[in-house]
Amino acid sequence: MHVVILGGGGFIGLKLAKKLLEDGGLVMGEITQLTLVDIAFPDLVPKDPRLECLKADFSDEPTMREVLQKQPGLIFHLAAIVSGEAEKNLDLGMRINFHASLQLLELCRTIALNPRIVFASSVAVFGGDVDRVILDDTGAKPRSSYGTQKAMVELLVNDYSRRGFIDGRSLRLPTITVRPGKPNAATSSFVSSIIREPLNGKAATYPVPSETEVWIQSPRRVIQNFIHAANIDEKILGDDRVINLPGLTTTIQEMIQSLEQMTSPDVTRLISYESDEFLQSIVLTWPPNFDPQRANTLGFVSDSSSEEIIRSYMEDEEIMYPSDL
Amino acid sequence: MHVVILGGGGFIGLKLAKKLLEDGGLVMGEITQLTLVDIAFPDLVPKDPRLECLKADFSDEPTMREVLQKQPGLIFHLAAIVSGEAEKNLDLGMRINFHASLQLLELCRTIALNPRIVFASSVAVFGGDVDRVILDDTGAKPRSSYGTQKAMVELLVNDYSRRGFIDGRSLRLPTITVRPGKPNAATSSFVSSIIREPLNGKAATYPVPSETEVWIQSPRRVIQNFIHAANIDEKILGDDRVINLPGLTTTIQEMIQSLEQMTSPDVTRLISYESDEFLQSIVLTWPPNFDPQRANTLGFVSDSSSEEIIRSYMEDEEIMYPSDL
Repeated sequence: MHVVILGGGGFIGLKLAKKLLEDGGLVMGEITQLTLVDIAFPDLVPKDPRLECLKADFSDEPTMREVLQKQPGLIFHLAAIVSGEAEKNLDLGMRINFHASLQLLELCRTIALNPRIVFASSVAVFGGDVDRVILDDTGAKPRSSYGTQKAMVELLVNDYSRRGFIDGRSLRLPTITVRPGKPNAATSSFVSSIIREPLNGKAATYPVPSETEVWIQSPRRVIQNFIHAANIDEKILGDDRVINLPGLTTTIQEMIQSLEQMTSPDVTRLISYESDEFLQSIVLTWPPNFDPQRANTLGFVSDSSSEEIIRSYMEDEEIMYPSDL
Repeated sequence: MHVVILGGGGFIGLKLAKKLLEDGGLVMGEITQLTLVDIAFPDLVPKDPRLECLKADFSDEPTMREVLQKQPGLIFHLAAIVSGEAEKNLDLGMRINFHASLQLLELCRTIALNPRIVFASSVAVFGGDVDRVILDDTGAKPRSSYGTQKAMVELLVNDYSRRGFIDGRSLRLPTITVRPGKPNAATSSFVSSIIREPLNGKAATYPVPSETEVWIQSPRRVIQNFIHAANIDEKILGDDRVINLPGLTTTIQEMIQSLEQMTSPDVTRLISYESDEFLQSIVLTWPPNFDPQRANTLGFVSDSSSEEIIRSYMEDEEIMYPSDL
């Protein structure tokens, strides 16, 4: 089977690609070809004859037409302008996050054969009263343009699935923690930075009060959930293809405490509070408490503690502490 | 103040125009100009020096640019491809219901001065489990492309309001009953037909079982609610501009019984059941039970009975029974 990952050059996209090439595990069959589409790729991509890296913007119509004409059976759609950038540049966010996604669905409708699509949506579709628990039927009320664009695509994924043009499923991702590499323009970037940077001997700041709750998930569990989403039969999903993933609710403070217990105060003293009005205006509207019954029933997974999340990061990225060990 | 009604040539648009010209009642000030935009107008439009009828498709960019350059303070956006047509022709529905609405918001962003916009959304944004009561925070889960398009525009109206480009409010309209004139391509058209046609001596059918519950509102109350929506200060609306209007929950059977009590069995024997799979596939997914607490708090109104709805239709349209009186 031919699989496509849009945004396949990003951290999660590449991790998903490696996992699929090494481990398979798709009910739709063995992978014969894996096409990654992204505007940039890191130097190190897996060496595998089945792998093709297409350096292109997924909003480019001829590229996507060519990709879809090969009739992939499964498409992971992870391509996006991140939240902070989409808030600062409405036109760019609308063009990539919304219009290019609609173009993908339209191309599926006209030239593809009902491919299965796993769409990466986000907790950012929620906003407002952060004290309430988000249920499966709680309405999307985004307080950012990024969340608005994701929520609109979810609606389209549902409608195009109902009409039989695609077999879609939209996963509302918690904040992915810990991301390796450098801080990015996602408004949630600091949630990873406060673990990653101190472990690397560098200072990190968080822009919201330390008691702020966040809803997070490790890259390991996200990859597992993406693959699971691709494996569920559409019969048990029905018309509503939107799934609130089961994240872990924790606080900035708890994450820092876990890090300190796993390392030492020498590490965590590199972390400090630095208030940021722009980031607060977005991050503090994301409700951190969910009751994701549907995802639990369907077999999606979450991390069980901050410690587990930090440990899986250190294992996956081969981070040693103390570093001279 | 300059007021615009998009879809102003339709039944509700014209009724709203007449009411505004005769009665005023807008907190934003007296109307100095009222521009109706529609692809067609009936022969009889009100004679009033303030009234301008612009025969154009609201998806036409130059027309809308011209309209917005006059800096209207208030825009009622009622223009739409109705539900049945939008389901049968996805491209047309997307073009008018979604893309033309996005174009309107984009033009407001670039050339208009933060106009107040009252957007006619619909109960069709809901779908699925019809036994549950829809609360104010129940998520939109449309089971039609029409509902999908309306829900996407609601999200945009919220985001463009949050960003300060417009001051929007989206009203989720119940099924408007009784519409005068001829049946149209709305999948809910029969709800009006079963009252209107028999009163006119003509046969009418309903495509769903008679015990089917519907959520309806008279044209009178809808007009009142549109004007009220234009009068509420944005301060008490906050970031969420979507309002479930308080409709009346009744059944096809109850409506027919009310009509019989107000007229005679000679009238209601013109009404019969004629099963229609296409209409059932859409109408039977609209939940008819709402608890619209926010609308009730804000002072929106509903009809109190089927009798009241039939009576207001007969009064407004000057229908006599028996007709030889």
